[in-house]
Amino acid sequence: MAVINLDHISSNPLLPEVKEVMIEAIQNDYHNPSSQHKAGEYAAELLENSRNTTAQLLGAKDSREIVFTSCGTESINHAIKGVALANEDKGRHIITTNIEHNAVIRSLKRLSSQGFKVTSLPVDKNGRVDPAEVQNALTRETILISIMHSNNETGTIQPIKEIGEIAREKNVLFHTDAVDSVGIVPLDVQKLNVDLLSFSSNTFYGPTGVGGLYVRRGTKIFPLLDGGVQENNKRAGTENLIGIIGHKKAAELAMERMDSRFEHLNNLKNLLIKELPQYLNEYIINTNLEYSLPYLLNISLRYIEGESVMLLLSEEDIAVSTKSACATGSLRASHVLLSLGLSHADAQGTLVISFGWENSEEDIYRFLQALQNVVQTLRAMSPLYKSA
Amino acid sequence: MAVINLDHISSNPLLPEVKEVMIEAIQNDYHNPSSQHKAGEYAAELLENSRNTTAQLLGAKDSREIVFTSCGTESINHAIKGVALANEDKGRHIITTNIEHNAVIRSLKRLSSQGFKVTSLPVDKNGRVDPAEVQNALTRETILISIMHSNNETGTIQPIKEIGEIAREKNVLFHTDAVDSVGIVPLDVQKLNVDLLSFSSNTFYGPTGVGGLYVRRGTKIFPLLDGGVQENNKRAGTENLIGIIGHKKAAELAMERMDSRFEHLNNLKNLLIKELPQYLNEYIINTNLEYSLPYLLNISLRYIEGESVMLLLSEEDIAVSTKSACATGSLRASHVLLSLGLSHADAQGTLVISFGWENSEEDIYRFLQALQNVVQTLRAMSPLYKSA
Repeated sequence: MAVINLDHISSNPLLPEVKEVMIEAIQNDYHNPSSQHKAGEYAAELLENSRNTTAQLLGAKDSREIVFTSCGTESINHAIKGVALANEDKGRHIITTNIEHNAVIRSLKRLSSQGFKVTSLPVDKNGRVDPAEVQNALTRETILISIMHSNNETGTIQPIKEIGEIAREKNVLFHTDAVDSVGIVPLDVQKLNVDLLSFSSNTFYGPTGVGGLYVRRGTKIFPLLDGGVQENNKRAGTENLIGIIGHKKAAELAMERMDSRFEHLNNLKNLLIKELPQYLNEYIINTNLEYSLPYLLNISLRYIEGESVMLLLSEEDIAVSTKSACATGSLRASHVLLSLGLSHADAQGTLVISFGWENSEEDIYRFLQALQNVVQTLRAMSPLYKSA
Repeated sequence: MAVINLDHISSNPLLPEVKEVMIEAIQNDYHNPSSQHKAGEYAAELLENSRNTTAQLLGAKDSREIVFTSCGTESINHAIKGVALANEDKGRHIITTNIEHNAVIRSLKRLSSQGFKVTSLPVDKNGRVDPAEVQNALTRETILISIMHSNNETGTIQPIKEIGEIAREKNVLFHTDAVDSVGIVPLDVQKLNVDLLSFSSNTFYGPTGVGGLYVRRGTKIFPLLDGGVQENNKRAGTENLIGIIGHKKAAELAMERMDSRFEHLNNLKNLLIKELPQYLNEYIINTNLEYSLPYLLNISLRYIEGESVMLLLSEEDIAVSTKSACATGSLRASHVLLSLGLSHADAQGTLVISFGWENSEEDIYRFLQALQNVVQTLRAMSPLYKSA
């Protein structure tokens, strides 16, 4: 039986159309887009085509506002460190939240060690930050606000537009980590009032190895990668052109299929939510169902370890995750779930189920059946469950 | 007629065997190597296989000393900035040379603006730095020496082993930018006495989008990309696995074919050097023929502009370059050639001819014929040539 991938937050399979253009690109031996002979100019044209499509996807006015990077993490590091170091003459205070991805947390930690001050805001029990708290945290030293568009563990979407209005009014730069949103959720950098936005192509079924950063014209930012003049002098290094060509196709299809894709994913999520009580008891839904990604549901299974559930499901050829793949190896409970007010025990019982274009309703039913068996087995061995 | 690529320093076509494994990888929908289910573990195995092969290629003792990056430029930024920031408690002085790639120059410029002191050493008229000058430049504050293995414009190879001995004796970390050497020139990090070495897969006919950094065990270095725990906690971000699989094949073939490849490329270079006088006069060879890459020849054509030669050759479907593709857009004469003592005029007349696995002797003859015509045309219009 084929593996059922319900861990799309960690990795998405490429669309067949993306595979096709990448294979063609591999066969075509494109030259270096920075070379000035005809072969180089042709490669540069392909690069710029992909940049234009990306600008369209994000609602950017000028394709030069798009900087290609190697991944979402690079985009985030670039945005945060690049803005901080280029604007430290104005102030050294940055505002963020307690539920960001490690790329944000650790970039800010690096800056803290260099003397920057960071205010990290809590979220309410629904997983959302209150824009009024952002307003209150602003000081005359604040140069940057970095708040994620959607959370990679719970899928909860933040009030970015409202925070963006505050940032604009106070003339503070605003970055949003939209790595798990772009290409799946309709989104526009103008309407969101953001100055910087990080994305990753694999989220919308393009290749890994391609990410990007939207940088509004006039934003003062240093490169993270210094060197050549690539990417309008914002990111040195020879481009991953095969990946960037695949990304273009993925971005095109994301625009074309935004509505149908949202509906397909959301239907799977709703089916799972509806059916869960038939298969399971004693669980908590950690995802904010009003404001959230269509493709992700985070639940805590009480009295057992999410890690064990994940491993037993893996034996049944079903892939799910327990937290950010980027946090693998750490046995600590998720900082995101603890921020929601969950107990350590419940946070340890977490399962992240995330869907993709290739999943079907049948996958959901097969998962539910397997989950029921696994949970029964584990709870039968759990001293916590017996005493509850 | 097919394009003749004599601009391999900017971009190399993939080997057929590399294309094959990359296409297979695209079809296979590998999962995220950081995921802990079976699909993730299988992906992690592929990643580690590639890391092991890379360690072999470089002579690294431990595969954990290999950090995959997105390109040579990222590797260089990581090495220089990562070592500087992690060791600034010991001192803030760095030694380099006047002929480095922009990734080195601009990374050091960034550090200079943060208070680091940089000593940049000259090269002699043969394009080589004198190890004694490195020795003399060392101070008690020196924490890093960064000197390239081979120059990307002239192909001249530096006395890295000798400099490495000095660095080791003085207990100073030593980084070499070997982006244009690895996979083509036999090279071993133990024999070279280096602590850090940057490379790029495309140099040896692997994909763009994959580079790497050798970091000797025990070297104190910060990540450039903070975030997840990928790459043994040295480089956050989801890996470009399709590229890394292609890179593995390229690294294997580089080891297998090192001798025959060197011979093929060197024969083409020697043929070009031997035949040049039959087609051309008034030129200068800027490459050190005793110590240089087998695949690159840098010549200055007096009284004319290299840029014009390149563009006219491009019209004949022959690709060459005039300087680093990473410096495209800049009209200034190459800092590398000026460092050799060339006049501005001669530096502007520079042509970089670089070969690859797919070039033949016939390509060289077709190039020479076209070059002769182009140079005649341009010199006929050159007031400098007429007055000379």
